Amino acid sequence: MTQPSVPKGTRDFSPEEMGKRNYIFSTIRQVFISFGYKPIETPAMENLSTLLGKYGEEGDRLLFRILNSGDFLLAAEKEKLLHADSAGLSPFICEKGLRYDLTVPFARYVVMHRNDITFPFKRFQIQPVWRADRPQKGRYREFFQCDADVIGSNSLLNDVELIQLIDSVFSRLGICCKVKINNRKILTGIAEIIGAENKITDLTVAIDKLEKTGIEKVTGELREKGFAEPVIEKLIPIINLTGSTYEKLDLMNKLMNSSETGMAGIAETREIFDYLKTLPIVAQTEFDIALARGLNYYTGAIIEVKATDVEIGSICGGGRYDNLTGIFGLPGISGTGVSFGADRIYDVMMQLKLFPDGVTSAAKILFINFGDAEVKYLLPLIHQIRQAGINVELYPDSAKIKKQMSYADVNHIPYVALVGETEMTEKMITIKDMCSGEQKKLTIDEIIYHYNKVLPTGIPPEI
Amino acid sequence: MTQPSVPKGTRDFSPEEMGKRNYIFSTIRQVFISFGYKPIETPAMENLSTLLGKYGEEGDRLLFRILNSGDFLLAAEKEKLLHADSAGLSPFICEKGLRYDLTVPFARYVVMHRNDITFPFKRFQIQPVWRADRPQKGRYREFFQCDADVIGSNSLLNDVELIQLIDSVFSRLGICCKVKINNRKILTGIAEIIGAENKITDLTVAIDKLEKTGIEKVTGELREKGFAEPVIEKLIPIINLTGSTYEKLDLMNKLMNSSETGMAGIAETREIFDYLKTLPIVAQTEFDIALARGLNYYTGAIIEVKATDVEIGSICGGGRYDNLTGIFGLPGISGTGVSFGADRIYDVMMQLKLFPDGVTSAAKILFINFGDAEVKYLLPLIHQIRQAGINVELYPDSAKIKKQMSYADVNHIPYVALVGETEMTEKMITIKDMCSGEQKKLTIDEIIYHYNKVLPTGIPPEI
Repeated sequence: MTQPSVPKGTRDFSPEEMGKRNYIFSTIRQVFISFGYKPIETPAMENLSTLLGKYGEEGDRLLFRILNSGDFLLAAEKEKLLHADSAGLSPFICEKGLRYDLTVPFARYVVMHRNDITFPFKRFQIQPVWRADRPQKGRYREFFQCDADVIGSNSLLNDVELIQLIDSVFSRLGICCKVKINNRKILTGIAEIIGAENKITDLTVAIDKLEKTGIEKVTGELREKGFAEPVIEKLIPIINLTGSTYEKLDLMNKLMNSSETGMAGIAETREIFDYLKTLPIVAQTEFDIALARGLNYYTGAIIEVKATDVEIGSICGGGRYDNLTGIFGLPGISGTGVSFGADRIYDVMMQLKLFPDGVTSAAKILFINFGDAEVKYLLPLIHQIRQAGINVELYPDSAKIKKQMSYADVNHIPYVALVGETEMTEKMITIKDMCSGEQKKLTIDEIIYHYNKVLPTGIPPEI
Repeated sequence: MTQPSVPKGTRDFSPEEMGKRNYIFSTIRQVFISFGYKPIETPAMENLSTLLGKYGEEGDRLLFRILNSGDFLLAAEKEKLLHADSAGLSPFICEKGLRYDLTVPFARYVVMHRNDITFPFKRFQIQPVWRADRPQKGRYREFFQCDADVIGSNSLLNDVELIQLIDSVFSRLGICCKVKINNRKILTGIAEIIGAENKITDLTVAIDKLEKTGIEKVTGELREKGFAEPVIEKLIPIINLTGSTYEKLDLMNKLMNSSETGMAGIAETREIFDYLKTLPIVAQTEFDIALARGLNYYTGAIIEVKATDVEIGSICGGGRYDNLTGIFGLPGISGTGVSFGADRIYDVMMQLKLFPDGVTSAAKILFINFGDAEVKYLLPLIHQIRQAGINVELYPDSAKIKKQMSYADVNHIPYVALVGETEMTEKMITIKDMCSGEQKKLTIDEIIYHYNKVLPTGIPPEI
């Protein structure tokens, strides 16, 4: 028999990994809730009509499609079958696909439930998404997104709040980071002043790579895409801007004065930084003109977060979109949101050894099993201790003590309880500290009093 | 544009529903952890080779299959395409399927990770599963299972512990229930003593329906399946047994004396009840000879839970299986487990109005937005209050007070904070109780002191 396996790009999570992952999820969730965001969940499967055309051509290709149930070929066009035309056949045999991100399902949710929603609507959503990407280090086909969005309010305060929220999450997790901020209107303004209004997508795709590849590669790509030399000449000083955020904003303001949209973007960005100044933000924040995030649906602020102490892609990103629900027939609702990449955050925390001890759930006390008489005596006592809020295990077999002790060890159970004939007569319980080896005899009330302690501070309750 | 929708049999969960669902999940999770069970998670997608043949013919039919990526028809047999042979084509175009339950993925997990696991291994798993069943009231195509299993120990104490665990979950949730207990060996014994050893599946399928349809229908079904009249005659007094659990066990013991397996089943069941007697179990427990749960993989104890105050199917069930990992090439590992059906439990709690107030997450205080100057003054104060552990929202727009108040109302935010010019001068915050309408002026320290209260007792922290 062949060894069973999981599909490539997917993973099992062991108790150890679950403890660490839940620490991240709990922290993010607690911060979301502390800002008044409310949880929703959407189904793993969406109708393909909801998903297709929302993520560009590549996205459509990377959707996992679900085969229709039953005699799925009944509806298939014979022509497509005869020519083994995969792309042509697919719409006939698949109606559903797996969720590709949390933003499009959220837009669908808002449109479907608009009569039950009070705007502004602040929602968060922590769920897996699936993409048929080529698996590689740090990139999976099933991974978790943690999104917070406010929809139905134009106020820049929402964008400011999201930056505050990002700062709270990463400072609680102990990750030092830099938050880059840009504005889609500034990118549009740049396109306008250099005379490349019609090529804004090519322009943003190219300058988005500035940090990664350098100015030479960026201009090279622009030349390939047919940008004229004078246009590129005009662009270079703009994307080469240096200085503090306010210095850059002042310079851009002068350069932008022929673009109304560009000026509006500068004003918005300045206002966001003015608000941020009033707040004790831990992270570095920076206006970065080269930040584009390649996503066409952003219309205002664009936000991206990088860990400063680890070489890794962005660990959080987002921005404002003015017309997301428009794709489902509900125009004019503005929203802004961020998405945390739990898997990358996990990798950062592993590399920097940021997980505190004790995030893995384990019982506090293991009762050693000495046989039937002792067990019958112990069962109600164990019940009582557990009811008092202490997590307790009884070893199920009367195996050798050494084996039972080693079970406690491997499972990080800090105390072992021994109750043999003596203890039964004395109505006492011998407790052994697995770390120090120290033993003491306690009554059940003493155990409940001494071991019913909450978890060490800073560790959110197991979820 | 057509109104967007979700695939049939799937659901969105609103913040209100999420609060209630998380209350159930948190309760179950906390109880699992209190017994020393550890969380794992497995991917939504499994290889079809892992899933097929594990759930019977019907199960295979109800699996959601995922279309291979890329030119999926390349590998298809031309013959199957020409004849539009859906069943024949499917293995060529789909390699993966969605998880159908949590038990088979767990068995796969144990086999794959056996070198990293210390036995006995107590795991829990709370994840959605998918079945292409015909959707109907209370039955969904995506639903959540909450499983706890111990694997690698034969001890009946594990079965006893699972019944304790069931009792803890339902008494914490406030659901009165009856736990029915049987043993697969007793069913085998019955088949032996009535001379129907070869028809044990037909026999158990039939008597499983006893409670639902009555003895007439059961014997009718047996006749249809070719059971001879003398066999049925012998069965009737057995399945008609009445009396207390111990009376029924005593009677069965006499009837069973020609079946070694049957006697072993009786002994095991008696031992389980003997252990239960030492414990303060809240639920009714009952030996029920007609309980079979139709699942062929059970080999020992069989457990099923019904809510006593609501007409609904079972809300939890499980049992012992001696060879689950055998299907993946690792024989000889015995396990026992239970599965809670979160969706049915939700329905029961809704019908009986068992959800406590306050399970929906909401901010504690909404700060009214009076405009830019007030907001700039407030932002650092709000930050300070939030850092102190109080969930606070600032209304993002300086909308009409009435609109902002109604936002607090709809979102169940109990307090509203008003800071205008007067308060800014006095360095005070006016707090309005949305329930009583009462208003008072407080300093920020007073707010932190008074409103930083934990949730009402009994409500687990939001997950």
